[in-house]
Amino acid sequence: MAYLNQNYLKLRAGYLFPEIARRVKAFCDANPEAAKRLIRCGIGDVTEPLPAAVRSAMHAAIDELGARETFRGYGPEQGYEFLRHAIGEGDYRSRGIQVADDEIFVSDGSKCDCGSILDILGSNNRIAVMDPVYPVYVDTNVMAGHTGEADVSGAYEGLLYLPCNEANGFVAEVPSEAADVVYLCFPNNPTGSVATRAQLEAWVHYAQKHGSLLLFDAAYEAYISDPEVPHSIYEIPGARECAIEFRSFSKNGGFTGTRCAFTVVPKTLLARTASGEMHPLHPLWNRRMSTKFNGVSYMVQRGAEALYSEQGKREVGELITHYMGNAKVLRQAALDVGLSVWGGVNAPYLWVRTPSGTSSWEMFDRVLNEANVVITPGSGFGSAGEGYFRISAFNSRQAVEEVAARLRKMTW
Amino acid sequence: MAYLNQNYLKLRAGYLFPEIARRVKAFCDANPEAAKRLIRCGIGDVTEPLPAAVRSAMHAAIDELGARETFRGYGPEQGYEFLRHAIGEGDYRSRGIQVADDEIFVSDGSKCDCGSILDILGSNNRIAVMDPVYPVYVDTNVMAGHTGEADVSGAYEGLLYLPCNEANGFVAEVPSEAADVVYLCFPNNPTGSVATRAQLEAWVHYAQKHGSLLLFDAAYEAYISDPEVPHSIYEIPGARECAIEFRSFSKNGGFTGTRCAFTVVPKTLLARTASGEMHPLHPLWNRRMSTKFNGVSYMVQRGAEALYSEQGKREVGELITHYMGNAKVLRQAALDVGLSVWGGVNAPYLWVRTPSGTSSWEMFDRVLNEANVVITPGSGFGSAGEGYFRISAFNSRQAVEEVAARLRKMTW
Repeated sequence: MAYLNQNYLKLRAGYLFPEIARRVKAFCDANPEAAKRLIRCGIGDVTEPLPAAVRSAMHAAIDELGARETFRGYGPEQGYEFLRHAIGEGDYRSRGIQVADDEIFVSDGSKCDCGSILDILGSNNRIAVMDPVYPVYVDTNVMAGHTGEADVSGAYEGLLYLPCNEANGFVAEVPSEAADVVYLCFPNNPTGSVATRAQLEAWVHYAQKHGSLLLFDAAYEAYISDPEVPHSIYEIPGARECAIEFRSFSKNGGFTGTRCAFTVVPKTLLARTASGEMHPLHPLWNRRMSTKFNGVSYMVQRGAEALYSEQGKREVGELITHYMGNAKVLRQAALDVGLSVWGGVNAPYLWVRTPSGTSSWEMFDRVLNEANVVITPGSGFGSAGEGYFRISAFNSRQAVEEVAARLRKMTW
Repeated sequence: MAYLNQNYLKLRAGYLFPEIARRVKAFCDANPEAAKRLIRCGIGDVTEPLPAAVRSAMHAAIDELGARETFRGYGPEQGYEFLRHAIGEGDYRSRGIQVADDEIFVSDGSKCDCGSILDILGSNNRIAVMDPVYPVYVDTNVMAGHTGEADVSGAYEGLLYLPCNEANGFVAEVPSEAADVVYLCFPNNPTGSVATRAQLEAWVHYAQKHGSLLLFDAAYEAYISDPEVPHSIYEIPGARECAIEFRSFSKNGGFTGTRCAFTVVPKTLLARTASGEMHPLHPLWNRRMSTKFNGVSYMVQRGAEALYSEQGKREVGELITHYMGNAKVLRQAALDVGLSVWGGVNAPYLWVRTPSGTSSWEMFDRVLNEANVVITPGSGFGSAGEGYFRISAFNSRQAVEEVAARLRKMTW
């Protein structure tokens, strides 16, 4: 009789975004007039048109598939060389960072890769995550059987949670105890914090000391404006021996619905067997992708390649300027009404302390009811997020100006 | 110190298609003139242009993404309702088969889904596969730790291999022993065999008796011409309680490079926990897809939807007619030279016995050297494939006529 994976039964039913959707729907059903005014600053989804450079490249790719001579069937599971090379040059080597084309694996999303990476790791690793945390890191470990049950706060037994708070500027310090695998996300989702070079160096030193693997999620690197803040973990000496980096075209090129991302697995990165033999992870990930994946749509890869053209880079720059302009408007509004705000400078997310000890979900309901704006309750990202909320800067300028005006009208 | 997944180290180094690529490259390097004549009938990759209906729909979708008003970001992880509905109507309900839209999960490939399905299953299932077998079923179970080591024949300890041979027409009989999970693939890759209604009924009865889960891969269903042969496992009463079905647009719509597929998980399908509680698998797969996947590219989904339009259906019909015409030409040539041939009637693959006890790889090398044609050695699909080879009908008519002529010239 077929057995199911019982680890799934440990997952808490109310995943954050479905619960938000449920509350928003209930509100809209009960308040049809207010529903018309609703503005969503919850989920981190882009809103502006796909760059023209990308659209042109994809149109051309579709036409290629329409002629026998230029038709393309199965592509390389690791991604086409044209895109791996554009990434290697554009994101790494042109910035003085050593990453080879064949260390870059093109995929259909960073969320997918962050989950799938566990396929090649053992089941006996001690896993560390930040708190608050992007829920996918935690949930995929629960599914893989790397945790026990959740406690009342939603924290899973067996995971090492590293608190991010006002005292550490929402960048966790390296812990005293050893973790085998550490998830790092900078610029951070949800707090919008960034790690300085010194902070990343401390993490690489920690990894060197303990033989840890750093899983570095840089999905928001394009939003960094401070020239002192590293965009890639590989800017830190030694990272090629201890880190995997996840990148995405979702938030720079507006690919959330188009789907393309990539993961860097350096060939110099090793992990151990139970008996202590060291093996490189690169061939394991290559085998994983060859066997359980079949490459990204050809035209999507051509679209992603176009982001590295002069026109593409200019258009990405305009998108970033737009969203970070939004962040500035929102940040000013929140400051003007006396709120304490983090993020929104090198990241498209603002992390705001709820006033007077209001809980995150109470604040969510208040902002929804009084301003008809959807935010994200900080507690949805972990217990250390309680007492905060996240505002996303992904929207039109007009909508953001309206949100700012409504926030100013609320009684805080 | 980070641990790797040691199960990967059990995988045999020479995956079939890389080994073929290696031998073809060595041949071409050594024989540059013959290399110019090379015709590939190895890998099952389509060659004909993407249907015009698909291209139009994708062009339109890209234009939609170019305007703020019609831009789409994250779509539903399970697929857009427009596509799930087109599939539900087009492939199931219009054929009298009960499948609801929300039992259909759109993905970027059947290979991905066949591998990922193990995420929601327990680690203690007894797994049965056919021999010869599509290697992905086996390798993903090895990676997941469901097997021991491989023996000299390449068979993994712990898997139940069901031999397919001339005596059973390359359709394995239900075994006397119980298996918890059974992979079925009809029309079959690699043998081109199809299962009759009675044979599928026997499998559903087997599953009912043992509480087994059938993983039914119907990627090639569009090639069935015999009206008596079922296209879907759900044509068999009781299958909604014991089967998951995998379908793909790769081989009907020519989507091998465009990437779209779907998996059906009926809500009536249950599996057990270690303590014997029964739970539906549908919410587990839904949770898996929500957490570890982010949906298929919007324009690709619009392209797939277009396959269900009148124009799309007509164009798919023309593609199938083309490839099955190829199969007929190849089949006749093989018969004419006195070879024993299976498949090629309801499937785009021919399964051919090597003459005079030649081994599969010897035959591969002979056909490569003497006819400059790439075939697939049957032994690459499992030990029961030894003494056979596969010819793929995916090619232009001109290339196939040339292959037929060269096969006729060879000394058999």
